[in-house]
Amino acid sequence: MPKQAIRTAVHADLHKPAWEQPQLHNRWHPDIPFSCTVQPGEVVKVECLDWTGGQIGNNDSADDIKYCDLSRIHYLSGPIEVPGTEPGDVLVVEIQDVQPFPEQPWGYCAIFDKNNGGGFLDSHYPNAAKAIWDFEGIFCSSRHVPGVRFPGLIHPGIMACKPSQEMLDMWNKREAELVDYHASIGTKGVVANLPNEKYAHAGAADAAIAATVAKEGARTIPPREHGGNCDIKNLSRGSKSYLPVYCKGAGLSIGDLHFSQGDGEISFCGAIEMAGIITIKLDIIKNGVADMKMKNPMYIPGPVEPHYGPSRYLTFEGLSVDEHGTQHYLDVNVAYKQTCLQFIEYFKKFGYTGEQLYILLSSAPVQGHLAAIVDIPNACTTLGVPVDIFEFDVLPKEGGFAKVIESDCALTSGK
Amino acid sequence: MPKQAIRTAVHADLHKPAWEQPQLHNRWHPDIPFSCTVQPGEVVKVECLDWTGGQIGNNDSADDIKYCDLSRIHYLSGPIEVPGTEPGDVLVVEIQDVQPFPEQPWGYCAIFDKNNGGGFLDSHYPNAAKAIWDFEGIFCSSRHVPGVRFPGLIHPGIMACKPSQEMLDMWNKREAELVDYHASIGTKGVVANLPNEKYAHAGAADAAIAATVAKEGARTIPPREHGGNCDIKNLSRGSKSYLPVYCKGAGLSIGDLHFSQGDGEISFCGAIEMAGIITIKLDIIKNGVADMKMKNPMYIPGPVEPHYGPSRYLTFEGLSVDEHGTQHYLDVNVAYKQTCLQFIEYFKKFGYTGEQLYILLSSAPVQGHLAAIVDIPNACTTLGVPVDIFEFDVLPKEGGFAKVIESDCALTSGK
Amino acid sequence: MPKQAIRTAVHADLHKPAWEQPQLHNRWHPDIPFSCTVQPGEVVKVECLDWTGGQIGNNDSADDIKYCDLSRIHYLSGPIEVPGTEPGDVLVVEIQDVQPFPEQPWGYCAIFDKNNGGGFLDSHYPNAAKAIWDFEGIFCSSRHVPGVRFPGLIHPGIMACKPSQEMLDMWNKREAELVDYHASIGTKGVVANLPNEKYAHAGAADAAIAATVAKEGARTIPPREHGGNCDIKNLSRGSKSYLPVYCKGAGLSIGDLHFSQGDGEISFCGAIEMAGIITIKLDIIKNGVADMKMKNPMYIPGPVEPHYGPSRYLTFEGLSVDEHGTQHYLDVNVAYKQTCLQFIEYFKKFGYTGEQLYILLSSAPVQGHLAAIVDIPNACTTLGVPVDIFEFDVLPKEGGFAKVIESDCALTSGK
Amino acid sequence: MPKQAIRTAVHADLHKPAWEQPQLHNRWHPDIPFSCTVQPGEVVKVECLDWTGGQIGNNDSADDIKYCDLSRIHYLSGPIEVPGTEPGDVLVVEIQDVQPFPEQPWGYCAIFDKNNGGGFLDSHYPNAAKAIWDFEGIFCSSRHVPGVRFPGLIHPGIMACKPSQEMLDMWNKREAELVDYHASIGTKGVVANLPNEKYAHAGAADAAIAATVAKEGARTIPPREHGGNCDIKNLSRGSKSYLPVYCKGAGLSIGDLHFSQGDGEISFCGAIEMAGIITIKLDIIKNGVADMKMKNPMYIPGPVEPHYGPSRYLTFEGLSVDEHGTQHYLDVNVAYKQTCLQFIEYFKKFGYTGEQLYILLSSAPVQGHLAAIVDIPNACTTLGVPVDIFEFDVLPKEGGFAKVIESDCALTSGK
Repeated sequence: MPKQAIRTAVHADLHKPAWEQPQLHNRWHPDIPFSCTVQPGEVVKVECLDWTGGQIGNNDSADDIKYCDLSRIHYLSGPIEVPGTEPGDVLVVEIQDVQPFPEQPWGYCAIFDKNNGGGFLDSHYPNAAKAIWDFEGIFCSSRHVPGVRFPGLIHPGIMACKPSQEMLDMWNKREAELVDYHASIGTKGVVANLPNEKYAHAGAADAAIAATVAKEGARTIPPREHGGNCDIKNLSRGSKSYLPVYCKGAGLSIGDLHFSQGDGEISFCGAIEMAGIITIKLDIIKNGVADMKMKNPMYIPGPVEPHYGPSRYLTFEGLSVDEHGTQHYLDVNVAYKQTCLQFIEYFKKFGYTGEQLYILLSSAPVQGHLAAIVDIPNACTTLGVPVDIFEFDVLPKEGGFAKVIESDCALTSGK
Repeated sequence: MPKQAIRTAVHADLHKPAWEQPQLHNRWHPDIPFSCTVQPGEVVKVECLDWTGGQIGNNDSADDIKYCDLSRIHYLSGPIEVPGTEPGDVLVVEIQDVQPFPEQPWGYCAIFDKNNGGGFLDSHYPNAAKAIWDFEGIFCSSRHVPGVRFPGLIHPGIMACKPSQEMLDMWNKREAELVDYHASIGTKGVVANLPNEKYAHAGAADAAIAATVAKEGARTIPPREHGGNCDIKNLSRGSKSYLPVYCKGAGLSIGDLHFSQGDGEISFCGAIEMAGIITIKLDIIKNGVADMKMKNPMYIPGPVEPHYGPSRYLTFEGLSVDEHGTQHYLDVNVAYKQTCLQFIEYFKKFGYTGEQLYILLSSAPVQGHLAAIVDIPNACTTLGVPVDIFEFDVLPKEGGFAKVIESDCALTSGK
Repeated sequence: MPKQAIRTAVHADLHKPAWEQPQLHNRWHPDIPFSCTVQPGEVVKVECLDWTGGQIGNNDSADDIKYCDLSRIHYLSGPIEVPGTEPGDVLVVEIQDVQPFPEQPWGYCAIFDKNNGGGFLDSHYPNAAKAIWDFEGIFCSSRHVPGVRFPGLIHPGIMACKPSQEMLDMWNKREAELVDYHASIGTKGVVANLPNEKYAHAGAADAAIAATVAKEGARTIPPREHGGNCDIKNLSRGSKSYLPVYCKGAGLSIGDLHFSQGDGEISFCGAIEMAGIITIKLDIIKNGVADMKMKNPMYIPGPVEPHYGPSRYLTFEGLSVDEHGTQHYLDVNVAYKQTCLQFIEYFKKFGYTGEQLYILLSSAPVQGHLAAIVDIPNACTTLGVPVDIFEFDVLPKEGGFAKVIESDCALTSGK
Repeated sequence: MPKQAIRTAVHADLHKPAWEQPQLHNRWHPDIPFSCTVQPGEVVKVECLDWTGGQIGNNDSADDIKYCDLSRIHYLSGPIEVPGTEPGDVLVVEIQDVQPFPEQPWGYCAIFDKNNGGGFLDSHYPNAAKAIWDFEGIFCSSRHVPGVRFPGLIHPGIMACKPSQEMLDMWNKREAELVDYHASIGTKGVVANLPNEKYAHAGAADAAIAATVAKEGARTIPPREHGGNCDIKNLSRGSKSYLPVYCKGAGLSIGDLHFSQGDGEISFCGAIEMAGIITIKLDIIKNGVADMKMKNPMYIPGPVEPHYGPSRYLTFEGLSVDEHGTQHYLDVNVAYKQTCLQFIEYFKKFGYTGEQLYILLSSAPVQGHLAAIVDIPNACTTLGVPVDIFEFDVLPKEGGFAKVIESDCALTSGK
């Protein structure tokens, strides 16, 4: 039988408040009603808002980032019911394509203010900043980070099945314990976002369920056992994800689309965020969780990733000695931060500001590897940057580098 | 002028005790005398013992691992004087080839006993175990880990220039502070190896210098600012490393050759260790450290890395919730450990033991990535395994997997 | 300034006869009026019909292929005027994306009847046959060639600037000479299609110009100096083509979109033909033809080609000894035909018919190389087939292969 | 059992005339005695002279090429007996490594005189010329073709099992018929080399057998059904070749090692020719010829080929219209010649001579594809050149190119 045009299973409207759209939600909870049904083997399109539900504009100021309301995230499309799935099954999600909306061919990457979201390098770059990225087919470039252009490794930041009530309770318990522990030792700053009724959106739920979801629903920021906000840059076109199922009907939700991202998603809004349309095909592996001893999702990347030869990656190294010279014990976080800072210092020589480079590290498909984590007391990480994303020669050479970049990214009006 | 056969700048003798060989040394110290001189632009061969100086045998017992004397490592070849280099320059090392000795076409990978070296998963796998890997040209396979065969991503684990006295003093100071700090909080186990006179080998140094080196010389286990034991699997054929120079003449040392390694080098002896011959070409970038704002080495991988398409990597995910269910705050080490354990559990279904898989993770060119490290409170890491290294189909499928492996790796006699 | 949605410069209507659409044409002639104007640096969409203008249906009979009217091809979109271009310049066409029409997510590949079009293997497979390929995002599969699935290397078969009158006259002269020569030696069959007024379509031309175009206009089947029907499978997403300009305003035409094709395009309708939308960006290199001594186009492939490791290509070899045992002198055509036949014989063992395999060779991204063309008297060519497009194991092994395919492709009703 | 050092099954002596070495031969004939025995599953080294048996020197004159005696080629190592093989089996040859002799780290590529060997472009470049290539580990470079450096795709040009008497007779018959046919139509030049007693070398054969071999033995220049001089650049490290067996014991011979080669091997001595050592492992597929319907060999390339991203190939196109403007009917040879000439004209702009570029095309791993061979009357071929082999930027750009190369390759003394 001739194949039909692919139907859209979840609709998202760019011109309507996210919290008024019944096929979207922004909490994890088993009681959020299914927004639609998709059969195993069926191919469908799922429309997604950007993670903030449209709070960020295509302009030259980072004020919208500075004052972004982080309780209004992430607006996810779903949950999608998949008939025939039961707890213990594995839902196989093949991503067949991801595209921006034709009427919105742009995205953004931003540094969040240290006091509103922060990021991996917020002790070095505490102020909000932003770059708009324009899309031209598979490529993107930015008036705020000139001199680079690259194909997107386009992907959803979030994908997961509904948690069961037991799993949800476990999450809430362990995260509360973490918050308590850090409170007890006087840690400053937010270590986890516990359930919060403010701006909770439970999709098409009635008032009673919506109240329960608002009260108990897990926030969407962290990745968890079901997957969720994994922000894995390689879940792109052609990839296959294997997601554990906890509820009858699976309840798949997807969102937080990225045109591209670097390993680590380091600036928190650490990818080229966009609204768009993802095409997926679903399949079921019965009893897969036990048969494959799965605890977390697995995946296989797609065959059309942007493809650079290995010798086109300029690679930086970092150790678990921090910028104050203090030795840490096999701490990969410290090592990767140092690696990122090495990249930033190197590229500043071309005229880029630190903020531009922090954003670039979050936007371009850089490869962050755990090189060695057993050579006490130093962990070693590496960061590989594809040199072909630059429009000028960036390879090491004698005599240093000429300045080629003159402008900055979008900053806040207060600066 | 016709090109001559390549000369051997450093000789290493497989049949003689390592500590009697004057071109080898096992400490970092500026006073260790140069073992030879290599001109910029010259191509030379450097022979290297395996990291233990030959303590491990090609046999079916892990007793030699269990009782391996870790004060007798790493035997490095050098320091090589490079005329014309001065502090602040960058030494460029092009690795043109790495080969095992023809008469020793094998290597080993091992799990160290928790009380003698340990490793990343030593709380799960506390006992020594070993696998011998046989080399067939570019390929390796093991009677102790049947069912896999792969081309080596052959590389040196250690490469660095001599530290200056100031840098050495800084290392010793900060590592001593770490030891003191951990002693103060009651940490069990070794957190850093401070200078230790036992079995110190200062190459061709006279008695007075040898005594100084033994007393002050930094141990070789951790990577540090100069590079050192970075254990970066991609420093293979054709790679170019950019190493900071701290002393007149540079003083390059190389050693700890690996036929192959996975990201993380997780079993500590976490690579296929071998003796062999490395061919290098040296070049100098004058004043490169300041011109390129280098703190640690940089590198560019070589063009002939084993090459799998992206969709041939089965990829596991892990989070910073440990195996006891405790939530940690953005801790990449916890996340990567969970990711490794996910791999192990999945592949046990084929009949492998945990020890075999722990060794395999350390031996094969698995890709360990920092996926996302800002989504509080969970870090997310991934581990990509090239499925084409297996001789049977390992991709996820309904119905689970048949057992195909019946044997184990080499264990200790006490077990 | 915020980027706008991309405008459509050429419209093609799937529901209207191709010959009634003024932005389409099917001859090469300098006098065909521009169908639209696109500025250098601008990104636009260009809609294209399939090469036959919609003659072929999504059904299970090859009758439409058998009786396809080959005078009604190729319907091209354009010519596009590019202000500022002059003869001697080079037009740079960056292909930013190619997509099928959402409402027509399928294409076809076919074997033409020996007496109507024919193909590379028409002495072996003289009868028409067809396969419909369904698109699922980046992937395609066919009910007529089961057991395979692969990502498309999607591209336009035809892209070129208008010829000048001088160039057109030269083409017509030399092709007429070829026809005359072959007539003189009694060659059977069509060796070239000379200008033919039947069904000529000159876009928006008035009657006088249309008559000239019909009379003189070069047919679109062969590739020529300007590019044209090159059928190069790698002109896909992200590629950059450098096209010589012969007329003021360039006059770029594009068409004959393929979802995928194998090297050689061997079955004549030797690709997965489709209607669709191509997104392009144009740029000019002034005086590029002389500066780069160009005679024919050049190009650089895009960075997101489907990516298989080298050791996943099963590769066949063929020589210039034909199937009757006759030795030919360094004849690459004979060698490649033998190579294709080798592929077909090998895969027949799995149950495929020759027609299915002939179509598969034309549809999948197989790599046809000229291996050696100097070793008298035998040319040697190779054909590499990515084994990962098959859903079952196709690698050589002892004991031969089990039959897994039971059905055939679409045939003609007369059979 | 511990693995032993790999034994050398065939010895070749660089300092002794090739024709005096009993493990070498230079004809194909079933009666040439086995030079050694290698068991299935065994790994052995095979030493090989360069194809001319050492006639060419590392110097700056092409006189040795001009006067090279082409009846003294190719000296092959073997035939190797493989116990257990019978006619109809397939011999699987895994190439585990190929290395030059340590004492001879160089090779050469040359243009043969039109009257002594010739080549693909001999009507354009009729005079002998030569380039010496120096090896540095995996890389090569040449004082005669400055500005390029690349890793070798190292491989044997020749590999095949002994023909049976029937196969040999068929070869001799069909090639004699070709010679007769061309004589009858007045073709100038040599179209095939028939058996020739001059300088025939039958290895360790006794006088009677040697006489038979000299009289009947097929010359080694063309590839044939058994494989032979296929000159396929991808039969490199890690590749697996499937060779038909015609005689009991197989009788594998190997030779004509190349450090690197471009598709087409166009300058006849169209590769970087070298003496060296190949490491192989043999296996048998019983009855494989019938089970896999093999006529010619098949192969699977190795996993460590030099690896450039697709968008790093500058690609030229050519058609079957020759340089005189004459239209040929779908003639791939004409098209590829035009493609090669396009490459040469483009790169001349950098200061290279045509001879240097002809040699470079033969030496570097350029990709020659049959793009389309059905679009009457023009065949279209492409030639992809990895731009990263050049030490300067070679991509198309406005304003043309500056001359960077000042010298030429080695020429003959008569010029």
